[in-house]
Amino acid sequence: MYGTPCDTHGTLRNVLVGQSGGPTAAINASLAGVVSAARRQGAHAVGMRYGIEGFLAGRTVDLDAALPTSVELELLRHTPASWLGSCRYKLPDASEDAGTYERLFSAFERQQVDAVLYIGGNDSMDTIAKLGAWGSRVGSGVRFVGIPKTIDNDLVGTDHTPGYGSAAKYVATSIGELSCDSDVYDLKGVTVVEIMGRDAGWLAAAAALATQGGVPAADVILLPEAPLEVDALLGRLEGLLAEKSSVILAASEGARTPDGRLVAERTNAPGTRRDAFGHLAALSGTSRYLAQLVRERLGVKARAVEISTLQRCASHCASATDLDEAFALGAAGVEAAERGGSERMCALRRSGDAPYGCSIETVDVHAVANRTKPVPTSWITADGMGLTVDFERYARPLIAGEPSLAWEDGLPQRLAPLG
Amino acid sequence: MYGTPCDTHGTLRNVLVGQSGGPTAAINASLAGVVSAARRQGAHAVGMRYGIEGFLAGRTVDLDAALPTSVELELLRHTPASWLGSCRYKLPDASEDAGTYERLFSAFERQQVDAVLYIGGNDSMDTIAKLGAWGSRVGSGVRFVGIPKTIDNDLVGTDHTPGYGSAAKYVATSIGELSCDSDVYDLKGVTVVEIMGRDAGWLAAAAALATQGGVPAADVILLPEAPLEVDALLGRLEGLLAEKSSVILAASEGARTPDGRLVAERTNAPGTRRDAFGHLAALSGTSRYLAQLVRERLGVKARAVEISTLQRCASHCASATDLDEAFALGAAGVEAAERGGSERMCALRRSGDAPYGCSIETVDVHAVANRTKPVPTSWITADGMGLTVDFERYARPLIAGEPSLAWEDGLPQRLAPLG
Repeated sequence: MYGTPCDTHGTLRNVLVGQSGGPTAAINASLAGVVSAARRQGAHAVGMRYGIEGFLAGRTVDLDAALPTSVELELLRHTPASWLGSCRYKLPDASEDAGTYERLFSAFERQQVDAVLYIGGNDSMDTIAKLGAWGSRVGSGVRFVGIPKTIDNDLVGTDHTPGYGSAAKYVATSIGELSCDSDVYDLKGVTVVEIMGRDAGWLAAAAALATQGGVPAADVILLPEAPLEVDALLGRLEGLLAEKSSVILAASEGARTPDGRLVAERTNAPGTRRDAFGHLAALSGTSRYLAQLVRERLGVKARAVEISTLQRCASHCASATDLDEAFALGAAGVEAAERGGSERMCALRRSGDAPYGCSIETVDVHAVANRTKPVPTSWITADGMGLTVDFERYARPLIAGEPSLAWEDGLPQRLAPLG
Repeated sequence: MYGTPCDTHGTLRNVLVGQSGGPTAAINASLAGVVSAARRQGAHAVGMRYGIEGFLAGRTVDLDAALPTSVELELLRHTPASWLGSCRYKLPDASEDAGTYERLFSAFERQQVDAVLYIGGNDSMDTIAKLGAWGSRVGSGVRFVGIPKTIDNDLVGTDHTPGYGSAAKYVATSIGELSCDSDVYDLKGVTVVEIMGRDAGWLAAAAALATQGGVPAADVILLPEAPLEVDALLGRLEGLLAEKSSVILAASEGARTPDGRLVAERTNAPGTRRDAFGHLAALSGTSRYLAQLVRERLGVKARAVEISTLQRCASHCASATDLDEAFALGAAGVEAAERGGSERMCALRRSGDAPYGCSIETVDVHAVANRTKPVPTSWITADGMGLTVDFERYARPLIAGEPSLAWEDGLPQRLAPLG
């Protein structure tokens, strides 16, 4: 038994916070929110270095020392990727490995941790769910709260996830600029733009937000949720090329054919590698495959552009709405823990699209962990190659506002990395 | 003989302006400068649609109608790529095909063109040089003035070229953000970032401007000017990986081995294609080849990121210095023509690095056409894998300042494309 170091509703001593999963432009804004709220409550903030895996190895950071003033917190808010470091470590099942939990909870007790906040996607919510379940079982007073984050926007239980709005803004901005670039020669051509999202097409769907001269800049959008019929795609492109010289095809890296095979897995898609488990180590090649297909089958110029990693770390083009919400969710996590909440994830509940508004609530983290939320079929056009206005109504508010980051000597300022 | 429609120093009737070569984020700022200056002088501005090739086919645009107010000119300034359209057409030698010149000059006369301004790189300066030479030969009063533009920064006769500063700012911003993204896991790894520039390494060199925590973000920079010794590179990377977990390797797409072969041409570099002339149709694959090499030879994680087309059209991250200079050069072209100048290119002459300043002069376009300017050997470190402070002193002022572009609904506003 670990006792109850603070009242159910009472002052927190140490708030332990970690970041997990892939980087985003907003995950550090949530960290800044956690630290700000902890400080406001008189609690100490302690960071896990490299997530729960690093914590297990004894690696923590004193965030009061590392982030002494609001100057560092403001820089942190505009610094992309996981400033504390991240991991992809999945906690074992307690029934198979109780020792890991005993080590963790004894470290929590030793370090006088009253709340553990974990910022991440559905795997990270699995961590919070497992820790919370163990805590309940052993009667621990430590509170476990998840803060959502993922550019993929595929978490259930929340209207959307921090990180998505910024990545979507970058994608839509880039597609708009690429559409200018694609139209300069008096030649028929297709530009294939590859966008992240292995299983959910939320980010590729953001291509629908880009406009060029008041009309959509992306002519065709391929999502994992809508299997790609190659002949239908080629027919559609042919029709478009009869009307205009430059066609933009936005394709999710997770685009797949009706048999479930990823386009990127096609044998003639170069650049695909498999890891030790037979999974594609780095999913890439969708745009190159499709560009080659267009060249061969339609006989027009085609080029492939991978927006790649840039889309998840482009703080210079972040959404102010996204950063504000990420910060608020981090702060709300501390407040929820202070009120005694545990095994919860902070979530956004939308009150309206225009004017847009979201409030913060908490949801049962066990209902979030390990599940994913695809783009609703009703938001995909009947031909499977575009998005409806319902998607636009949903997504457009999420990219609103430009970040107030500081530029120096022509470059955006960031917080220096942890040593 | 075509007569002299205006005095050597006198009012211009019609100013014909074209854009040529590859897109940049600043070429439309030069067009806006041309139109503004023409308007100020009471001249009409006429645009070539798709460059001199489109003009030969009779395709022009009335820019007084298309850009009626300062509102459109301001949007044009922040619109990437060639708004008028571009071409890669090389004028024939007059000795072999006088007919083309006769057709062009008869169109100039018919349309009462007193000045022809062409915005582009060294091929475009070849066009101005040839037109000017023919004009002198036949005693035409039409003035021919070139306005420099290229992200490659490889034009002689000018301190630097519009388009370079914006592309360099985007590259340095992206490298800084990628360095955050590369450092999140507690794993050794190399991120290979591929940057445009087939023959000159100016743009890849801009990676040297990116900093992370006060030190350079890019650990190794490979330029076409410094042949790549593979074993020396691997040795260097090994040394870096012994000191730090995440290494950033910035490689020009034109990086080559001492035998002159492009890295991208290696047989095992996927994604390389040849056009009908045997040239690489789209130069790409350098980063994938190098990442594979690192995985195989050093046994660490490696990933390839191509910044690709995004770097030449990212108006949202343009350099205000670049846009201002591009605009001023366009205006100076009209003024030079108005003063009677011909067979000239407007150029930037630097007066100092700190404080930075450039004045505009004109240079003989025949001395510019078809020549290229590599990164000076003295600005490349002795090991061939980095840049000296001289380069930084040169390049840093060029990325300064953020553009005052308008954002609406979360996206940068641009001028609608020409129909």
